[in-house]
Amino acid sequence: MSDTTFLADFHHVATFGATGNNGVERQAATPEDKLSRDWFAGFAAERGWEVRVDGIGNMFALIDLVPGAPYILLGSHLDSQPLGGRFDGAYGVLAGLHAAERVAERLAAEGAVPEFNLAVVNWFNEEGGRFAPSIMGSSVFAGLMDQDKMLAVKDLAGTTVAEALGAIGYLGTDERPELAGYAEIHIEQGRILEREGITLGAVDYSWYTQKLDIEVLGEQSHTGATAMADRHDALVAASKVVLLVHGVTAKFDDEALVSSVGQLTLEPNSPIVVARRVHLVADLRAASPQIVAEARASLLADIAQIAKDHDIRINVNDFDVRGIQYYPEEGLELTEKVAANLGLGVRRIRTMAGHDSVAMNRIVPTVMMFIPSVDGVSHCEREFTTDEDMLAGVRALGEVAWEMVNGALAAAPVDGQEPAKAGAA
Amino acid sequence: MSDTTFLADFHHVATFGATGNNGVERQAATPEDKLSRDWFAGFAAERGWEVRVDGIGNMFALIDLVPGAPYILLGSHLDSQPLGGRFDGAYGVLAGLHAAERVAERLAAEGAVPEFNLAVVNWFNEEGGRFAPSIMGSSVFAGLMDQDKMLAVKDLAGTTVAEALGAIGYLGTDERPELAGYAEIHIEQGRILEREGITLGAVDYSWYTQKLDIEVLGEQSHTGATAMADRHDALVAASKVVLLVHGVTAKFDDEALVSSVGQLTLEPNSPIVVARRVHLVADLRAASPQIVAEARASLLADIAQIAKDHDIRINVNDFDVRGIQYYPEEGLELTEKVAANLGLGVRRIRTMAGHDSVAMNRIVPTVMMFIPSVDGVSHCEREFTTDEDMLAGVRALGEVAWEMVNGALAAAPVDGQEPAKAGAA
Repeated sequence: MSDTTFLADFHHVATFGATGNNGVERQAATPEDKLSRDWFAGFAAERGWEVRVDGIGNMFALIDLVPGAPYILLGSHLDSQPLGGRFDGAYGVLAGLHAAERVAERLAAEGAVPEFNLAVVNWFNEEGGRFAPSIMGSSVFAGLMDQDKMLAVKDLAGTTVAEALGAIGYLGTDERPELAGYAEIHIEQGRILEREGITLGAVDYSWYTQKLDIEVLGEQSHTGATAMADRHDALVAASKVVLLVHGVTAKFDDEALVSSVGQLTLEPNSPIVVARRVHLVADLRAASPQIVAEARASLLADIAQIAKDHDIRINVNDFDVRGIQYYPEEGLELTEKVAANLGLGVRRIRTMAGHDSVAMNRIVPTVMMFIPSVDGVSHCEREFTTDEDMLAGVRALGEVAWEMVNGALAAAPVDGQEPAKAGAA
Repeated sequence: MSDTTFLADFHHVATFGATGNNGVERQAATPEDKLSRDWFAGFAAERGWEVRVDGIGNMFALIDLVPGAPYILLGSHLDSQPLGGRFDGAYGVLAGLHAAERVAERLAAEGAVPEFNLAVVNWFNEEGGRFAPSIMGSSVFAGLMDQDKMLAVKDLAGTTVAEALGAIGYLGTDERPELAGYAEIHIEQGRILEREGITLGAVDYSWYTQKLDIEVLGEQSHTGATAMADRHDALVAASKVVLLVHGVTAKFDDEALVSSVGQLTLEPNSPIVVARRVHLVADLRAASPQIVAEARASLLADIAQIAKDHDIRINVNDFDVRGIQYYPEEGLELTEKVAANLGLGVRRIRTMAGHDSVAMNRIVPTVMMFIPSVDGVSHCEREFTTDEDMLAGVRALGEVAWEMVNGALAAAPVDGQEPAKAGAA
């Protein structure tokens, strides 16, 4: 691997589903996603690595170094949000492929036999924009989600995951590799590393997150002929809910809670019909479960009052609740050691966003690293990270992978539920 | 015609696209719409009436009584809102077919030759739920909308009007009949007739209406990873706009203004992405243009403030502006005479909703009548009118048609722009 070939590959993959303003639109199991998958398979095939596709569309490129040993897995996801950025996910897969190649070449050059084999993964549907929930492929792999249930999930057009994967030829039946560890590198999607001028983040824990599925049930009527007093307008009530979900953050310290509605659909959604039903999803995240619980309780009380005021029904259900996950201390120390050896600035950092590594951390020793995001923006075309930071991250991931195939984290804890150490905010 | 056959036909047509709770879903140019169209053509063919389909999908059943004379046209529309009622539109078409048959039989029985021919119409896309704007077929007929532009209008799935009509076999090329008058009967969609125990409404004028096309442009970001302070959430701003559009009615007398948002779409509409764009449509209606103008000015000022507060762009455009239309005094007096002869209670009444007759009133002498709506609800499955009221309306329409084919309104004014008389509210 050279810096030049990594950058050439990265910018080539960014052409799959490229949008007008330097972004990509490569939602899960679309023709654009297929282009990036074909490229991934081609990269592996050119190097003689075995390619496997499992029953939920996860793709693995396997480098066999030690017959019969389990694998250290590197990677992330190649799918994107609609009009998303070209770094989110794709950077981690490309970094994984190039880091793995570097490790394999170094082992061959040294004639060394490691403790574990090495593999790279492209997880299916990390984004969850087309098929909810997000982090689907790695969660199925980790046994946190049921594969059959996930295959039956439909997008807004009624297409199932199974149908969509089948249509692009990526509903596989291959055996999943047995793992000994997982390492992922990702853009931060926040401003902390940029602000502090630090290249590498050692991710110590993930925020507590939960979603609320909210259904507002009014009555359909005519926007022209029905008297205002006779209406039970689901959209008016839903708009108040959106503002509540946004406004509840003000009850806590600045940025202690993030809370938004990103998805909202209307029925029947006709210009001259008062809506009978609005379905929306609220996403709440905080460093502490207590803050999310307080915000949730406040929202439920206020939403009940809105329903009463409007004489309509509002159903609220919790889903996609994800507790705080602690990454193992051994992995944090490994990242810090590698950064020191490479002369890179490093700090411990929490992740507000979910990642495939959060699922993998439940079943194998896992390392998660961040590189800086310019202006902290993500999930948009304006998302950006410099070539220099990307190359530093590839080097760091290569060193981490080298240590891991040689057994560095073999004894690290894997449940992620207990704090390995009080996390630095 | 007998009462029994009318009711049998009405309830049969209500099976096309029937929904679970006594409603219908028969949006324009869908397979369900085709069923009702095929039935309409069959009704005419069984009676030897000529069927024509014009270039925007309007269907005409022509009864030739006087060679070469223009036609008195009766009718309404068979398309419905999503999960709409079975009376809105369909009642007027069925009443038109049965009233026309009664007139033709009476002429034959009396051996009389009228002044005009008689025809019944099923207008294309009155509802506008799938293809905006509403009142499309009659507006093209009346020269108020451009046919080619309307054929290119797309639904939310990207299908054009021309493609949808072609797919169900109703993109016609037949010549449009020359008209001498138009009469329509419709359910009131409000409570006035029901409250006063009056069977027939003589519609004297239509409310002033206009829509606002509103585009809220924020910035896409991550619902989890982006700091609250760094977000430009298009949905939060759009929710405030929805509440403004609803709340502006409180600045005027009770029910003097109706104002709602019925259509709203989000981009990208993903649970974990802050929306970059929300598009919504506000519908404002009042008896006076001044009230709508005041409400619009108030909304524009408040929306500009929201855009400023949120540091985002909000574009607002006027469209579908429809001035007050006055129906001719001669037609109102004809309805009152017919009601008196039939022993039916009658009162003058304005229409808040748009109708095909509003378009036709611009080009030919037009009569518009209402029958009661139970609870005043419409555009929903719960919409209801009694068989008794429906039958009374068919009789009234038959009498009006009889007078009109015999020249009753031949000299009435047709522009609809000047008040024939100060309208009663």
